[in-house]
Amino acid sequence: MSQSLKYAVFGAGSWATAIVKMLCENLDEVGWYMRSVYTKEHLLREKHNPNYLSSVEFKTEQLKLSNDINEMAAYADVLIFVIPSAFMHSELEKLTVDISKKTIVSAVKGIIPESGLLVGEHFHDIYNIPFENIAVIAGPCHAEEVALERLSYLTISCADAKKAQEIASKLSNSYIKTKISDDIIGTEYAAMLKNIYAIAAGIAHGLGYGDNFQSVLMSNAIREMKRFIKKMHKMKRNINNSAYLGDLLVTGYSTFSRNRMFGNMIGKGYTVKSAMMEMNMVAEGYYATKSAHLLNEKNNKKTRLPIINAVYAVLYEGKDPKKVFAKLVDQLD
Amino acid sequence: MSQSLKYAVFGAGSWATAIVKMLCENLDEVGWYMRSVYTKEHLLREKHNPNYLSSVEFKTEQLKLSNDINEMAAYADVLIFVIPSAFMHSELEKLTVDISKKTIVSAVKGIIPESGLLVGEHFHDIYNIPFENIAVIAGPCHAEEVALERLSYLTISCADAKKAQEIASKLSNSYIKTKISDDIIGTEYAAMLKNIYAIAAGIAHGLGYGDNFQSVLMSNAIREMKRFIKKMHKMKRNINNSAYLGDLLVTGYSTFSRNRMFGNMIGKGYTVKSAMMEMNMVAEGYYATKSAHLLNEKNNKKTRLPIINAVYAVLYEGKDPKKVFAKLVDQLD
Repeated sequence: MSQSLKYAVFGAGSWATAIVKMLCENLDEVGWYMRSVYTKEHLLREKHNPNYLSSVEFKTEQLKLSNDINEMAAYADVLIFVIPSAFMHSELEKLTVDISKKTIVSAVKGIIPESGLLVGEHFHDIYNIPFENIAVIAGPCHAEEVALERLSYLTISCADAKKAQEIASKLSNSYIKTKISDDIIGTEYAAMLKNIYAIAAGIAHGLGYGDNFQSVLMSNAIREMKRFIKKMHKMKRNINNSAYLGDLLVTGYSTFSRNRMFGNMIGKGYTVKSAMMEMNMVAEGYYATKSAHLLNEKNNKKTRLPIINAVYAVLYEGKDPKKVFAKLVDQLD
Repeated sequence: MSQSLKYAVFGAGSWATAIVKMLCENLDEVGWYMRSVYTKEHLLREKHNPNYLSSVEFKTEQLKLSNDINEMAAYADVLIFVIPSAFMHSELEKLTVDISKKTIVSAVKGIIPESGLLVGEHFHDIYNIPFENIAVIAGPCHAEEVALERLSYLTISCADAKKAQEIASKLSNSYIKTKISDDIIGTEYAAMLKNIYAIAAGIAHGLGYGDNFQSVLMSNAIREMKRFIKKMHKMKRNINNSAYLGDLLVTGYSTFSRNRMFGNMIGKGYTVKSAMMEMNMVAEGYYATKSAHLLNEKNNKKTRLPIINAVYAVLYEGKDPKKVFAKLVDQLD
């Protein structure tokens, strides 16, 4: 791969905006697709995203903006998808351009509800992208801190180490350090599971559990995550690396995490539906909980997942969070 | 060991007070030694510790209070020491009673400066206590949350599982869950090392690093802790258990941790001496940093300890924290 590869980001949320900012540090031109005509016009006129990370000012001459997903897919060699997993399917259905020879990068955290697949697997199975052309960008990274240029670390996973290195080089700068990994599946699952654990942390906090319990919950969560991922894709990995444990911690300890906030409301007595309405959005972890539960149910030999099962019971089986957590605490140590 | 064993707690800080509270849930009488005559008188009169966890009300008829360490050492079968490691040596020098047949429990976090030994080792080497009579109480546990009766988990380590179980049974109640372990040395080192990492977290915060970096720091810290403890005492242990990872997290993420506060002041520009004077105390992690550094230096084959070495350079070599951390970040991933 050469220096002259064209990059495009698909999506206009906070994480997409942060990734565009990183690419702008290294590339003369960055493609950026967004659905909203208003957002595009605002960016051109005001030089910042109206809705997310609006403190970040862009040089518009560096940006190639488009509301046409096919135009952008045709333009770029490296396509970075940063669309919430719940909207990926409907966005991708608009694609008529052949992307089978492109490098596809997922910065989406979660499973695509329509296919029940991780984003990487979805591209592989449905768009015939070979796995060596699929990469994943993993945290731990709050987009808000990228906006503030606070030091952050990213892990770029790809079966092809050279591709991972090329992508990493375009994201690295004075405030972003990158490392590469060959564990696409593990890092994708970690990114998905951490949102479930953030919901669990939120529920616990809402119910009145304190910091001592939170640390026990996180200590059990990383062990549960290790079991889950090992079952899904066995390979040598250190679960305490930043892409797994770091990502769990940055989300599980963040009072700004939407997943933790969603859990907190439920712990405080909101119904699942009213918490969603109040937040005016669906937290990624809501879908992740169902997916993780179903994936485990499909296995002949189930993995012990007390935390995921507890969150599932609260979110999907209408169980009382107080009672569910009173049982959960006896399964932790 | 039978139900009728007598327990005594040595020390009157917040953690000591929390442990007395736990014992009072299960025992008719609890021995409690403290240096201060004033604290003892206040406890008898006002039914609470004047300085720590003063919201906890004791039934004074349950307490056997004493300012005489020998009286208390003679009284008890199980001696629980909860004295800051820096004062252990001078307190223990007062002992004339033979304690070699007693069960000694350490709830002290750190190394005794005078001997350079972990508390358990100190009792073994200097007081001829066999290892099967030595136990350790490990967190994660803020004393303040015990006062509030918030659910917390403790790990009791002892080479003799029956003794660990007996002690655990006296500490367990509706808000304290216990588990036992045979890794005294590992849990003692973890309790000591976590204070160094809390200082590191504080320095980073003081220097302006954010939550993304904090999660990377903790992810690297647990890997460093694993390497350190493995070198000191190789045995099968899961470093992600609550006694290791949980304890690291509850301290490293606590804005109330004195170690983190100490680091934060240094990161903000205080000298080590002025931070100590401002806090009116010496954070445990200050001594732990020197001990851990020296222990590693003594090894023929040194362990890679970038975080501990960085804290050591700041605290003991007068290095500029900003420069030290600018180098440290390149050694993390």
